[in-house]
Amino acid sequence: MRLIDPSEAAKAFRAETSRRVAQCGQPLTLAGLLARDAAPAAVTYANYTRVGCEAVGIQFDLRRVDRLSVEAAIDQANAEPLTHGVIVYYPIFSVEHDRYIKDLVDPRKDIEGLNTYWARKLYHNERFVDAAKTKKSILPCTPLAIVKLLEAAGCFDPSNRSLTGKTIAIFNRSEVVGRPLANMLANDGATVYSFDIDGALAFRPGGVVTSCSLGRREALQDADVVITGVPSRDFPLITSKEIKAGAVCVNFSTLKNFADNIGERASVYIPRVGPMTVAMALRNTVRLYQNYQARAESTGFHS
Amino acid sequence: MRLIDPSEAAKAFRAETSRRVAQCGQPLTLAGLLARDAAPAAVTYANYTRVGCEAVGIQFDLRRVDRLSVEAAIDQANAEPLTHGVIVYYPIFSVEHDRYIKDLVDPRKDIEGLNTYWARKLYHNERFVDAAKTKKSILPCTPLAIVKLLEAAGCFDPSNRSLTGKTIAIFNRSEVVGRPLANMLANDGATVYSFDIDGALAFRPGGVVTSCSLGRREALQDADVVITGVPSRDFPLITSKEIKAGAVCVNFSTLKNFADNIGERASVYIPRVGPMTVAMALRNTVRLYQNYQARAESTGFHS
Repeated sequence: MRLIDPSEAAKAFRAETSRRVAQCGQPLTLAGLLARDAAPAAVTYANYTRVGCEAVGIQFDLRRVDRLSVEAAIDQANAEPLTHGVIVYYPIFSVEHDRYIKDLVDPRKDIEGLNTYWARKLYHNERFVDAAKTKKSILPCTPLAIVKLLEAAGCFDPSNRSLTGKTIAIFNRSEVVGRPLANMLANDGATVYSFDIDGALAFRPGGVVTSCSLGRREALQDADVVITGVPSRDFPLITSKEIKAGAVCVNFSTLKNFADNIGERASVYIPRVGPMTVAMALRNTVRLYQNYQARAESTGFHS
Repeated sequence: MRLIDPSEAAKAFRAETSRRVAQCGQPLTLAGLLARDAAPAAVTYANYTRVGCEAVGIQFDLRRVDRLSVEAAIDQANAEPLTHGVIVYYPIFSVEHDRYIKDLVDPRKDIEGLNTYWARKLYHNERFVDAAKTKKSILPCTPLAIVKLLEAAGCFDPSNRSLTGKTIAIFNRSEVVGRPLANMLANDGATVYSFDIDGALAFRPGGVVTSCSLGRREALQDADVVITGVPSRDFPLITSKEIKAGAVCVNFSTLKNFADNIGERASVYIPRVGPMTVAMALRNTVRLYQNYQARAESTGFHS
């Protein structure tokens, strides 16, 4: 079994981003908004962002604010001409309130691709924001990181960058990772079985979503790729007996979702995704700069 | 103690809406989207909408669709020139996914005022959508219904329609009811203590939100108005001993949140809100028609 270290896999992306940052002609600044009473995971993500920014030459401006001032801090960062990207560290309030906050970040500075503006582009498979197809849409960082790791694992057909014929099982259907990821993989040709506590859905090649009667057992038997992001210790760990021989296994939960014996049948195991997520956030920062801020021409964005 | 029946209190609004519908010069149609496997509460709300529409002369076009087709059904209703309002019955998916769906309803047809477009108007206290102040913003139905019931209960100063000097405790801070309601009441001059499982916040007169160290006990001792919407049997019922003498008590939860003895100290008890919510949804339907669809002139709306 091959173990993929996402930090190693992210190296080429960091190098490429570093080159592009140097070509920008001005320093790029990313504003990070961290609530004073943020959870440890949010603080960790902010630290990783700082280290990542240093590695590629982006200035990271971390702003610790009271959670009741996050909205005002977003408005300010949106308005600052020399702030090129904005990242907000969640959770701050409830899922529902945080969803409101995500939509306050100007899509043109939303390096995490969490604004509904970008979610709609993804769900409608609109890969460019302009008719001339020169400006690529922003994809959410963690799903994008997982796609890049699947590329590194050799899951895509290299002749046409497609997942046609592949079956993928995802255990997580959050709006931040599981649902957009299922849609992206289906857009690339895979059949995706998506599980959450409400049951299963199937994302068919091309992105059509249908109901799905498969259970965990059948889906795992079929899946060439198994992706987990279940933040609960009640989730029974996926064992090597359950998966198809040669399956690629990816865990993006902060908890372990695969049993230690998974290597007995998996061909590739990717135990975490975080460093690639940060690499994608920085890559998105450069893309947003190039799409919207590098020149004073029309941007194709209508707010 | 005075018991206010929201159905009685809604009569004047239904009559006024009925008059306005008759003045529209064309039949108004409201499309209701109900998932086939919807929860009983959603089906009940749809039935109330139908009865309400019949009472005021709005055509109600109920469309039962598979939950995976709700998005397409919204797109279609948005595009239909003879559909003047759209109401979607939740829950359909998760809180987070449903939030995405709420933003798909065209704000110009969003009679429930659930689109983030309207939430932002509310949180910024922008009461009109046009500079000439002829077109009022849409407020979310349930918070608006509660405001109207508080008016019926005599909570507002009639000389200036203000809540200045009033203290209000709200047990619920959802994005659909508790948070917008707290903000609306603070915009009208009240000091609002807002409780949810994450603790308390204070919404100060004018709408500034601050942290709050008060517990349930102190807030209830101070509150001239107590509003509850806690959908859990674990919530200890609020008893007459806990409240201020003469308090106005409103419950919008489907569960009872006040003890049976509440009348010993409360001056007014409003045990449910539903019929007023429906009345406000229909009132919003007419307002949206008048603001955006009645004439072909500029609407002041930028999507």
